Amino acid sequence: MMPPGNQGESETGRLEAFSDGVLAVIITIMALELKAPVEGTFRSLRERLPALLIYILSFTLIGIWWNNHHHLLRAARRVTAGVMWANLHLLFWLSLIPVLTEWIGEHYQEHAPAATYGFVCVGAAAAFTILVRAIIRADGSTSPVAAAIGRDDKGRISLVIYAAATALAFVSPYISYALFVVVAVIWFVPDRRFTNL
Amino acid sequence: MMPPGNQGESETGRLEAFSDGVLAVIITIMALELKAPVEGTFRSLRERLPALLIYILSFTLIGIWWNNHHHLLRAARRVTAGVMWANLHLLFWLSLIPVLTEWIGEHYQEHAPAATYGFVCVGAAAAFTILVRAIIRADGSTSPVAAAIGRDDKGRISLVIYAAATALAFVSPYISYALFVVVAVIWFVPDRRFTNL
Amino acid sequence: MMPPGNQGESETGRLEAFSDGVLAVIITIMALELKAPVEGTFRSLRERLPALLIYILSFTLIGIWWNNHHHLLRAARRVTAGVMWANLHLLFWLSLIPVLTEWIGEHYQEHAPAATYGFVCVGAAAAFTILVRAIIRADGSTSPVAAAIGRDDKGRISLVIYAAATALAFVSPYISYALFVVVAVIWFVPDRRFTNL
Amino acid sequence: MMPPGNQGESETGRLEAFSDGVLAVIITIMALELKAPVEGTFRSLRERLPALLIYILSFTLIGIWWNNHHHLLRAARRVTAGVMWANLHLLFWLSLIPVLTEWIGEHYQEHAPAATYGFVCVGAAAAFTILVRAIIRADGSTSPVAAAIGRDDKGRISLVIYAAATALAFVSPYISYALFVVVAVIWFVPDRRFTNL
Repeated sequence: MMPPGNQGESETGRLEAFSDGVLAVIITIMALELKAPVEGTFRSLRERLPALLIYILSFTLIGIWWNNHHHLLRAARRVTAGVMWANLHLLFWLSLIPVLTEWIGEHYQEHAPAATYGFVCVGAAAAFTILVRAIIRADGSTSPVAAAIGRDDKGRISLVIYAAATALAFVSPYISYALFVVVAVIWFVPDRRFTNL
Repeated sequence: MMPPGNQGESETGRLEAFSDGVLAVIITIMALELKAPVEGTFRSLRERLPALLIYILSFTLIGIWWNNHHHLLRAARRVTAGVMWANLHLLFWLSLIPVLTEWIGEHYQEHAPAATYGFVCVGAAAAFTILVRAIIRADGSTSPVAAAIGRDDKGRISLVIYAAATALAFVSPYISYALFVVVAVIWFVPDRRFTNL
Repeated sequence: MMPPGNQGESETGRLEAFSDGVLAVIITIMALELKAPVEGTFRSLRERLPALLIYILSFTLIGIWWNNHHHLLRAARRVTAGVMWANLHLLFWLSLIPVLTEWIGEHYQEHAPAATYGFVCVGAAAAFTILVRAIIRADGSTSPVAAAIGRDDKGRISLVIYAAATALAFVSPYISYALFVVVAVIWFVPDRRFTNL
Repeated sequence: MMPPGNQGESETGRLEAFSDGVLAVIITIMALELKAPVEGTFRSLRERLPALLIYILSFTLIGIWWNNHHHLLRAARRVTAGVMWANLHLLFWLSLIPVLTEWIGEHYQEHAPAATYGFVCVGAAAAFTILVRAIIRADGSTSPVAAAIGRDDKGRISLVIYAAATALAFVSPYISYALFVVVAVIWFVPDRRFTNL
């Protein structure tokens, strides 16, 4: 009854809305886990500085995910069962970021929180790749996503960096933090592949 | 003034948006209740493993509810008072999942949390059936929902399994957990009844 | 550039979306404040029963507000500054419900929590009336809201009952709880004034 | 395939939806950080009064940001990478408001929380200005935003007041609170520049 284009719009619409809702809550709930300093002093605020820095990192990474997700779903046309589950799978990994952000904020000198954070980022990066493939499978080989994504170099590079960050956390967590920042810088400029669609 | 189809779209639109909002918060808030490990060690992380596993289960079940809800409301055309309340009734049961997930995460060897979780799933499954009927009543016998849903075998089967999980929690909570996983597997492939609409 | 009707749709659209977001978070966050029972036993669950009952009441009342708000904004055509602030004013009062629900859940035999809850409901009811007037002022005397709302008997009656519940909390909080249930029953059937628009 | 106007609508649509989601969670989560009074008495409620007053202030300021953001994005036509990041940057500063609101609520007589709150407001005001410029750059000099915003006196004035509030918190935090209220009053009447678009 509705024209196909409109149907497609509506099809991806609710998936985007739900994902946006989840990402909006994730990004805001991290701020909630930034506990208020115990004392009303700058000294007490300074003790929260590592937690604030890791919060800024996580906020940026979630922002990047949202950004890429936004561009990916704009280029998608059909929502199949596979796309839905691939999307939920991505949201699952991202939903673990706030509690890990809190964990690192409290134990930023330790190996385990940094390594776990890296592992979850590997999971999210892999889930994003799976989502891209699910969308291409749903839309067919003429999909604008298939045409645009090409070899997905950025995705592969960041997956490698996240894996390195996970392993190198056992040498020093600070190496991991530096690598997370590198990924943030790489993705900061959003994907030209999709922007021009 | 607007064409009737558009009107219908707008009618279910806000109901979907509100439901999506609630479900997005529910699914994300469970992650918040995953407390950060006390120590910065893998040993401390491992102590959170049961809580993580039940979180994955709840995340999957809420994902299934969202998925089915999504397909159901896409097929719905009219929002009456009955539909609204039936929808809120479903959301009520689902809103209890996060606190029960936290409870099981802390007491997974006990009978009471598993049985209560099963009972709330029975409530949600019954509420979903009521919502389906409310939509069919609102749309009339020519409703695509009525045509598509047929005998709702999956819904009936999962209601029975949830009831069994509730009862068998008194034998062993692990039987209940296994049955919840069975329901997840049954629903994992989304409902073909609606997908082709 | 867009047709006026569409413009109006878009105009109320984001106000609805923001309000839905706030109400969705309010209704879900109350569930988060339902603390998990301390022990893994039914005895421990039973201690949470008063908190659960007041949660059900608050969930129902917020559901009623959302319902009426939904119907009101569907009938609204223009969003002025006055409408926006009247809407935020309503959301402000409703945003206090979760913390009061938690307070009553812990001190349900006391006067103060019940009286404060009643007072906040009076505030929300007054804010809803102000919002109705702001919308009529924005849309003009030919507004469907103006035509539909007539004398707003239900709104007046519930305002009176909330005020009574506030005062009678000092006699017994249980009288207040009974009166809140009466309001819920009155509003349960959504407003016929708007439903037929 | 879609007409350009519609495309633009859809382009800003998801940015608005995500921002609304974040702002809705921010505004509601502040209410969650309003802790329930310890005792079930009015005396215990009165101890929460400073926290309630700062909550009302933050609620009003976030409401103003949402309001201005709403009008700004209605006037925007294109979403570029720069616009997206400028928007996330604004949301970052606003996401710090809830934890600072909690901090002030507990230490309202101290200098540090009031100064930090002022500093974050400066950051948010600067971020809003950057967002305005990013939108004008994206839309070109014929942008309705460029035409409407003129010299942005209100934005400049509030930036100055926020900076003053940050500095004067070291004299007395109460001066800061008074200045925050002044900003709220200035912005309370929404921006006529955009309202008439």
